[in-house]
Amino acid sequence: MVPELDKIRGKIDDDRFTKFMGIQLLELREGYSKLAMTITDEMLNFHNMAHGGAIFALADAAFAAASNSHGQIALALCMNINYRSPANKGMKLVAECLEESLGRRTALYRIEVRSEDGRLIASSQGTVYRKEEELANV
Amino acid sequence: MVPELDKIRGKIDDDRFTKFMGIQLLELREGYSKLAMTITDEMLNFHNMAHGGAIFALADAAFAAASNSHGQIALALCMNINYRSPANKGMKLVAECLEESLGRRTALYRIEVRSEDGRLIASSQGTVYRKEEELANV
Amino acid sequence: MVPELDKIRGKIDDDRFTKFMGIQLLELREGYSKLAMTITDEMLNFHNMAHGGAIFALADAAFAAASNSHGQIALALCMNINYRSPANKGMKLVAECLEESLGRRTALYRIEVRSEDGRLIASSQGTVYRKEEELANV
Amino acid sequence: MVPELDKIRGKIDDDRFTKFMGIQLLELREGYSKLAMTITDEMLNFHNMAHGGAIFALADAAFAAASNSHGQIALALCMNINYRSPANKGMKLVAECLEESLGRRTALYRIEVRSEDGRLIASSQGTVYRKEEELANV
Repeated sequence: MVPELDKIRGKIDDDRFTKFMGIQLLELREGYSKLAMTITDEMLNFHNMAHGGAIFALADAAFAAASNSHGQIALALCMNINYRSPANKGMKLVAECLEESLGRRTALYRIEVRSEDGRLIASSQGTVYRKEEELANV
Repeated sequence: MVPELDKIRGKIDDDRFTKFMGIQLLELREGYSKLAMTITDEMLNFHNMAHGGAIFALADAAFAAASNSHGQIALALCMNINYRSPANKGMKLVAECLEESLGRRTALYRIEVRSEDGRLIASSQGTVYRKEEELANV
Repeated sequence: MVPELDKIRGKIDDDRFTKFMGIQLLELREGYSKLAMTITDEMLNFHNMAHGGAIFALADAAFAAASNSHGQIALALCMNINYRSPANKGMKLVAECLEESLGRRTALYRIEVRSEDGRLIASSQGTVYRKEEELANV
Repeated sequence: MVPELDKIRGKIDDDRFTKFMGIQLLELREGYSKLAMTITDEMLNFHNMAHGGAIFALADAAFAAASNSHGQIALALCMNINYRSPANKGMKLVAECLEESLGRRTALYRIEVRSEDGRLIASSQGTVYRKEEELANV
């Protein structure tokens, strides 16, 4: 385990919004992340399914983890999400984020959110802007 | 005020995730919604700015309100978000959602999230699938 | 008419792909463009409607014109398109591109493609990366 | 080789816009397609690189082929594209489209456009609306 990745892992664990959402970091490598979240009662919408915003929060947390994994500050520029299957209360969702392309100033990621039995809940792509500053010094 | 819109307003007010996020419905008309949310400490990310997922939650709540405003169940198929300016703790954000195009089976919406002084924080578009079922009967 | 805008207009008029597609530049101002294209037989797909790629080409040409209108090189990072209504052979389409937000390194645009009678054919958003180089010197 | 797929292949080969763009269908299976296109002089933009619209045309043709491969009419609802690397005159680009999720009324696809040496030029996702009508009868 690289010390640098440990520092980043620590930062991600301290993220208040992911804590608020009960999101857990399962894995972090350079350009890759895996996170989990269980749908609680507070995450339901008026259709009684998981709110799109709650599902997106998990996808976005995975995107942030993977894109900041190189230790250089990465800020989301654009992201899309395609909803494929509803998620219900009590379901545990797992998001995986893969790096499709890493450039000097921008990078592209792909994120899949699945139920524990492998059903695709949502699928995303996102592009970040990579700042000059390193994450650990901020 | 149309009774139908009142029922839909009631449903939106009962949405547990928007309550969890402290989102308030300010206006609802057919094909239009305006909602507000204040960035709290729990919504910050490890860069100490509002998490993209929190900003998206507000945009998505506006999208859901406007797209379900016709009383027919509308489910998000795809949505994109472009982040333009960071939001800090304590900032009050306002999201407005406009209907760009209403079809029988699908509809398209545009959502802007701004700070109170009018700065663009994020801008989105989203397409819904419109089910046969009416919202009030569900 | 600013001389700088004239130079940019000249560059856009010389764009080989927009010529190939029969796209005409109608208006260009800083952060704004209006272009037109008529659906020809060559632009039809196997459903006998205008190919999504042909409609996108018009939207993208408008995006490129508006985003390069400041004289600084702008390269598309991400773009989405929502198709709302089919376009048929012989239809004249008009695309308008508006600047939603102009930053130092990135900028966001909104593009609408309509038929001459105002029907929404497609609607897009796109983010560019703005290079340091000026357009006129390239 | 399924006769049904042959019919669909024939339809795709007759697509006028993909012919106009010199796009070739290399492979077609249910939920999968692979197409190629060489960047010609007519596809260059005013930056002297392949126009984003030309690259999108290839991605979109792959999307249309894979999404119509089941023999049921599929119409694009939304698509995003992330540009990662410029393409120059003479470059041969290959697009592959994979089905991420197939539903009764909608389906989601992922499309990658690469240079022959494997460099990622652009990456997309797209959602289609699946009509009741079958393709072969139209």
